[in-house]
Amino acid sequence: MSASVPVAGVDVGGTNIEVGLVGDDHEVLDRAKAPTPTDGPEAVLDTIASLVGDLDEEPLAVGVGIPGVVHDGAVLTVPNLEGWGDSFDLVGALGERLGGVPLALGNDANVGLLGEWVAGAAAGGRNVLGLWLGTGVGGGLILDGRPYTGSRGAAGEIGHVVVLEGGALCSCGRRGCVEAYAGRRMMASAAAAMHDAGRDTELFAIADDEGKPRPTSGVWARALDEGDALATELVDSAVDRIGVAVGSAVNLLDLDTVVVGGGLAEKLGQDLADRVAEAAGPWMLRPSPDLRFVVSELADDAGVVGAASLGRATLLGG
Amino acid sequence: MSASVPVAGVDVGGTNIEVGLVGDDHEVLDRAKAPTPTDGPEAVLDTIASLVGDLDEEPLAVGVGIPGVVHDGAVLTVPNLEGWGDSFDLVGALGERLGGVPLALGNDANVGLLGEWVAGAAAGGRNVLGLWLGTGVGGGLILDGRPYTGSRGAAGEIGHVVVLEGGALCSCGRRGCVEAYAGRRMMASAAAAMHDAGRDTELFAIADDEGKPRPTSGVWARALDEGDALATELVDSAVDRIGVAVGSAVNLLDLDTVVVGGGLAEKLGQDLADRVAEAAGPWMLRPSPDLRFVVSELADDAGVVGAASLGRATLLGG
Repeated sequence: MSASVPVAGVDVGGTNIEVGLVGDDHEVLDRAKAPTPTDGPEAVLDTIASLVGDLDEEPLAVGVGIPGVVHDGAVLTVPNLEGWGDSFDLVGALGERLGGVPLALGNDANVGLLGEWVAGAAAGGRNVLGLWLGTGVGGGLILDGRPYTGSRGAAGEIGHVVVLEGGALCSCGRRGCVEAYAGRRMMASAAAAMHDAGRDTELFAIADDEGKPRPTSGVWARALDEGDALATELVDSAVDRIGVAVGSAVNLLDLDTVVVGGGLAEKLGQDLADRVAEAAGPWMLRPSPDLRFVVSELADDAGVVGAASLGRATLLGG
Repeated sequence: MSASVPVAGVDVGGTNIEVGLVGDDHEVLDRAKAPTPTDGPEAVLDTIASLVGDLDEEPLAVGVGIPGVVHDGAVLTVPNLEGWGDSFDLVGALGERLGGVPLALGNDANVGLLGEWVAGAAAGGRNVLGLWLGTGVGGGLILDGRPYTGSRGAAGEIGHVVVLEGGALCSCGRRGCVEAYAGRRMMASAAAAMHDAGRDTELFAIADDEGKPRPTSGVWARALDEGDALATELVDSAVDRIGVAVGSAVNLLDLDTVVVGGGLAEKLGQDLADRVAEAAGPWMLRPSPDLRFVVSELADDAGVVGAASLGRATLLGG
C-alpha cells in the first residue's frame, strides 16, 4: 500500500475562490473558501496562497482552474474577473508564493469536465462534450481519451456554436449563438423585455422573494415548478437550441458522452440531460450507439476535483 | 541509407478506383485505375486486388480509403456505392485476396485529409479541419497531432453542422445543414428550380456544351468566370454558410489549419480558401493567431497518398 498523495485543487470563480485538498481517489479531504478579490491578479494569487496554506496538509502539487483562456501556464484573457490585463504568467507568479510546489493551470470549463471525467458522470467516456449552463454557456472536451484544449487553449466553446445565422443577439456581439438562447444572462434579458412589454411572469417576483437581484438557476427552477408560462417557453427554447448545437457537435466529433452541468442542471437533474438528448436526436446524422447524455454528478466540486487532477498530473510527468 | 519501402494506397470513389504505389517521401511511383464495380463489395475487392497486382512492385502494406463509415477495419455503411449491405469486414476479405499483406482502412474524407497532412497543404498543422466541397460537403479532422475519427469512425461531418435551424432542406433529410447550401447536388437542384421559375442562368447550357448531364465543378467555375448572376449568388451563399459552420468549428476546436479541397477548390484555388476565411472571420470568438486557411495541394492524389500513409502506419505498429 502506498501512502495517499494529497493535492490541492483551486477553483477560481467570479464570486468565490474554493480550494480543496484532494486524495488519490479524488475525495475532497479538506476545504477552504474566500471571496474572489476584485482588484486584479496579485490579490487573487495572495488569496489562493493563503487558502492553500490553511489546508490540513501541505499539498504535493496544486492545480488551478480559472475562468479565462489559458495556454502554456499563462492566462491569456479573463473576461469575467475585474482588473486582469491581457496576459498574465499565473504559474510563475503563484509558484513564487507557494515555494516551488508543482503547479498546473486550466480553464474552468475544461477543469470542471476533467473533474466529471476522473470522478463523476463522464467517467469511462473517451469522446466527451461537457456543456455548462450558467450565466453563459461554457464547454469542454475530452477527445480520444485526453483533455482537448485546442491550439491556444480556447477550445470547447459550444456556447458560441451558431445555430441560427442572423438569429438572436448574443453577449459576444454575434448573432445566433446557442448562448444567445440558453445563457441565463440572455434568458433573463429576454424575460425582462417581454415582461416590460406586458407578458405575465412570476420570474422577477420569485427573484425578489428569494432576495436575488436577478433570476438565478434556483429562481428559474422554481418558476418552472410553478408552471410559469414565460419561463417554460424560454427554457424550452433554450433546450431546443442546445439540441441543435449538440447535434452539430456530435456530427463533427462522433462523441460517446455529453455531460450537462451548471446551475440549471443541478436544479433539474438528469431530466435536463434527457431533454437535451431528445432535442439533439433529430439533428444527429450517425450517432454512436454508445452515445449517452448524463447530468453532472460533482456539482460545485467538479472544479476543485478537476483542478486537483490537473495538479496531480504534474507529479506523473504529465 | 535505407531502401525505399513502397506501399499501395487505394482510393475507392463512386466512379473510379485509383491505386498508387507510394514511396517513403509520399511520392507516387506508379498508378493503376479502373471503374468502380456497381455490383457490390466482392467485385470491388476483386478490382482492388487486380489493380494492386498490376503495380510495378509488390507493396509491403496497403491502405484503402472508402466513401463510408469505417470502424475497426470494417465498413459500417457506404451510402454512395451500390450493392453494399450494412456492415462488411473489408480488411478481412481483402486480406485474403492480397495474401496477408498488412492492411488498413479509412473513410475517404479522413484519408484525403491525411494525405494533405503528411504531404500537402495541411503539413505542420496540429489541429486541422479538412473541408471537401463535392456533390456533398465532407470533412475530416486532425486533432492534437493525430487523425481523429471519433467513437465509431463517423467524425468530421462538417457538412452536417447546422447553420440555420429550420433552413433549407438537406439531402440528409434535415434542415439547415451547411451541405444544404454548399453541396453541389443541392446547389444544382436550387439552380434548376430557379431556372424553371424563370431566372436566367447559363449553368445548364454550359453543362450541355461540355457534355455533362449536370453542372460539375468545372461547369460552376466557368459560369462564375462568365459572370453568371445565379451561379454567383449560389456560390456566394454557399461560401457564407460554410463560413458560419467553420466559425462554429473553430470556436469548438480552436483549430490552427483549415484545408479547403474538392472539385470547386481545385478549380478556384487559394482564392476559395481566402473567401472561406473571410466568411468565417466574423463568427470566430478567439481564433488562434496561427490559424490559416489553405487550399488543398494534392488534388486527386490526396486519397492515394493518404491511404498509403494509413497502410504505412501498419508497418510501424500504428
